[in-house]
Amino acid sequence: MNFKILKNCSSSSARVTEFDLPHGKISTPVFMPVGTNGSVKAVKHKTLSNSGVNLILGNTYHLYLRPGAEIIKKAGGLHKFISWDHNILTDSGGFQIFSLAPFRKIKKEGIYFRSHIDGSYHTLTPENVVDLQKTFRSDVLMPLDVCTPPEITWKKAYSAMKTTHDWALKSRDHWLGCRDEWGGNLFGIVQGNFFKDLRKESAEYISSLDFPGIAIGGLSVGESFDVFQEHLSETASVIDKNKPHYLMGIGTPEYILEAVENGIDMFDCVYPTRIARNGTLFTWNGKISIKKEIFADDFNPVEKKCRCFTCTNYSRAFLRHLFKTNEILGPMLATEHNLYFIKEFVDKIKESILTDTFNDFKKTFSGDYENKHS
Amino acid sequence: MNFKILKNCSSSSARVTEFDLPHGKISTPVFMPVGTNGSVKAVKHKTLSNSGVNLILGNTYHLYLRPGAEIIKKAGGLHKFISWDHNILTDSGGFQIFSLAPFRKIKKEGIYFRSHIDGSYHTLTPENVVDLQKTFRSDVLMPLDVCTPPEITWKKAYSAMKTTHDWALKSRDHWLGCRDEWGGNLFGIVQGNFFKDLRKESAEYISSLDFPGIAIGGLSVGESFDVFQEHLSETASVIDKNKPHYLMGIGTPEYILEAVENGIDMFDCVYPTRIARNGTLFTWNGKISIKKEIFADDFNPVEKKCRCFTCTNYSRAFLRHLFKTNEILGPMLATEHNLYFIKEFVDKIKESILTDTFNDFKKTFSGDYENKHS
Repeated sequence: MNFKILKNCSSSSARVTEFDLPHGKISTPVFMPVGTNGSVKAVKHKTLSNSGVNLILGNTYHLYLRPGAEIIKKAGGLHKFISWDHNILTDSGGFQIFSLAPFRKIKKEGIYFRSHIDGSYHTLTPENVVDLQKTFRSDVLMPLDVCTPPEITWKKAYSAMKTTHDWALKSRDHWLGCRDEWGGNLFGIVQGNFFKDLRKESAEYISSLDFPGIAIGGLSVGESFDVFQEHLSETASVIDKNKPHYLMGIGTPEYILEAVENGIDMFDCVYPTRIARNGTLFTWNGKISIKKEIFADDFNPVEKKCRCFTCTNYSRAFLRHLFKTNEILGPMLATEHNLYFIKEFVDKIKESILTDTFNDFKKTFSGDYENKHS
Repeated sequence: MNFKILKNCSSSSARVTEFDLPHGKISTPVFMPVGTNGSVKAVKHKTLSNSGVNLILGNTYHLYLRPGAEIIKKAGGLHKFISWDHNILTDSGGFQIFSLAPFRKIKKEGIYFRSHIDGSYHTLTPENVVDLQKTFRSDVLMPLDVCTPPEITWKKAYSAMKTTHDWALKSRDHWLGCRDEWGGNLFGIVQGNFFKDLRKESAEYISSLDFPGIAIGGLSVGESFDVFQEHLSETASVIDKNKPHYLMGIGTPEYILEAVENGIDMFDCVYPTRIARNGTLFTWNGKISIKKEIFADDFNPVEKKCRCFTCTNYSRAFLRHLFKTNEILGPMLATEHNLYFIKEFVDKIKESILTDTFNDFKKTFSGDYENKHS
C-alpha cells in the first residue's frame, strides 16, 4: 500500500499519513461516511466526491442480504453497482450480526444467523466473508470477528478473542491466496473487550500477522468516555506504528479528536448522517437542533463560517420549516452540511498536525464547541 | 407581461408563446413542478434550474399554515425564503381547503376553515389571499375560488360559480390597487363544474375581467378522460386567445398532450414527483415500476435515451435496490429523472409545434408510450 508517515505530532501520537488504495491515494486522518446499503443516506455520491471524499464504507452484512452477492457480481463489483469511482472499505458483517440478527450461533467454522429482514438462515465464515468482499472488489476488506458487549466475563471475552484470532489467521491466508485478483487490502481487527491483558494480547497478535492495516474494534459500544479513552490509548500504543490505524465506529468531533491524538488515522460512523436526518446539525459552537422554535425566524445560515451548499444557500429558518413539514429536502440539506462539516473538521486537524499546532487546535475547538449556543 | 404567440399549430390549437414575469421570461408550453411547502419534494432547486426549469408552483394554503406569512415576510418573500431566483406561481389555497381541511364554510366574504395540521380556525378572503401572495412576492397569483367535486347539482355548481366570479372581481380590484408594489400577475380562474352552460358563462366572464392570464380549474378531479377532453376543449375555445392559458392540476404525458392540443400553455401537477417517490419512472415506452423483480439484474439505465443525472450514472438494478432498502436516494434519483423526463417531453412538444409536426409527434409518442414494456 506504500504507507508513509508524513508528519508526527511532537506532543502526542497524532500523525499525518498517506497510502495508496486501488481507487486512489488516501490522506489521513480521514473520516469515512457510511453507505450501509451502498448509498450514503440522503446524499448523492457526486456531492461527496466534489467535497473531496474519496473513501466510503459499505456494510457487508446488508449488501450480502440485499441485493446479494450475485447481483453485485453481475454488476462488475460494488463500485460499478453504486457508481462510485473512489475507494470503498467494507466491514465483515460481524458487528451487524451481533447488533441486528434475531438469532446467531458462533461455531469454530463461522457464524450461523438469521436475517433481520426475512428471518432466512445464513452462515458467514472467515473464508466466505473474504470471498464476498472480493466479489465487491472492496479496496479495504475486514475479516470476520466476534463482537462482544461490555460487562461480559473475562472468560467469555477470552474465548471470543481466541475465535477472532483464529478467524483472523484463516481470513489472512484466504486473502493471501486471492488478493492479486483485484488488489484489495485486508486489515486485522483487535478485540479483547474491556480487559487490558486481552486487548494487549490481541493487539500484539494481530500486529504479528502483518496485515496491511490494523483496526481497533469493540470500543465506543456504550462504555463511558473515560473507559473508551483508557482502552484506546493502551491498545493504540501497542499496534504496529508503520501501518494505517482504523478505529471502528467513531464519529463525533470529541471522539475523533481523541482518536487522532492516539495515532488513529481512519474512522467511520453513521452518527453525522443519522443526527442530520433527525435535524441535528454541527456548528463550530456545538450542535443545534434545527426544529427548535428559536430558529423559526433565524435567517442566518446553519454555520456562518461554513461554505457547504446548505449554508451558502439556505437559512436556519428554512431548514427548520423543511423539518417541521417533513420535506425530504430537510434530511438532504442537513446531511450535506454535517458531512461537509466533519470533512472540514478533519482537514483542519490534519493541517494542525502538519504545522505542529494540534494541541492548540484541540483546545480552541473544544472550548468553542462546548460553549454551545443552544 | 408582454405576451407573444410565437407559433400556432396549423392543425390544432397548440401554440408556442412567451411572456415576461418578474423573475425571467417564460417560454411555453411549460410544466411547473409543484413545491407545496416551498420545496419541490426530494430535489434541490439548483438541480431544477440547471435543467432549465424557471417556474415552480407553491401552495398558498400550506405556506400560510406553515411557516406562516409572518416568517416569509421577515425573510423578504418566498423566493428569498426558499432560495429560488426564478419564478413562482402560487395557487389561492381554495383547492387545498376543499381537499384537505377537516371543516369549511363558504360565506359571501370568504371561506372559514380549520387547519388539517392542528385544527386551528382560519379565514381566507379574496382580499387576504391576494395580500398573502403579495407577501410571498409571487410572480403569478391566483384568486380565491370555490372548488366543487363532480356530480353535484346544476344549482350548486351555479352558486359556486357565482361566488367564484364575485371573488374574482374582488381579487382583481384588490390586486389592481397593489400590483405595482412588486409586479406579480393575477390570473383569473374559470370554474363551472361539468355543466357546459356554466363553463361557457364562466369562461366568458373571466375573460371579460382582463386578467393577465386565464386558468381553467375544476378539471382532472376524478372524471373520465373523455369528459375531461370534452370540457377542456369547449372551455379552451372560449377563453381569450391573447393571454397565457393555464390548466390546473395536469401532469401525465397523456393529459399534457391533450392540454397542449387545446391551446393550453401552462400546467402543474404533483404526479411526476409523487409517483417517483413510489418508484414509478417515466420512459419513452411507458412507465415502469422499478421495484419489480424483473429489474433486479437489469443494468440498463431507466431510459437509455435520457441524459439526466440518474440515467447517466445509475442502473435500474441499483434504483430497485435503493427502493427495496428504503434509501432516501431512491426517491431523490427517481424524482430527478421524472422531472427531467417531463421537461424534455414538453420541450419536444414545443419543438414539434415550431416545426409544425405536433400531430406526428403526438402520434409517435403515444404509440411508443402505450406500447409499455412492463
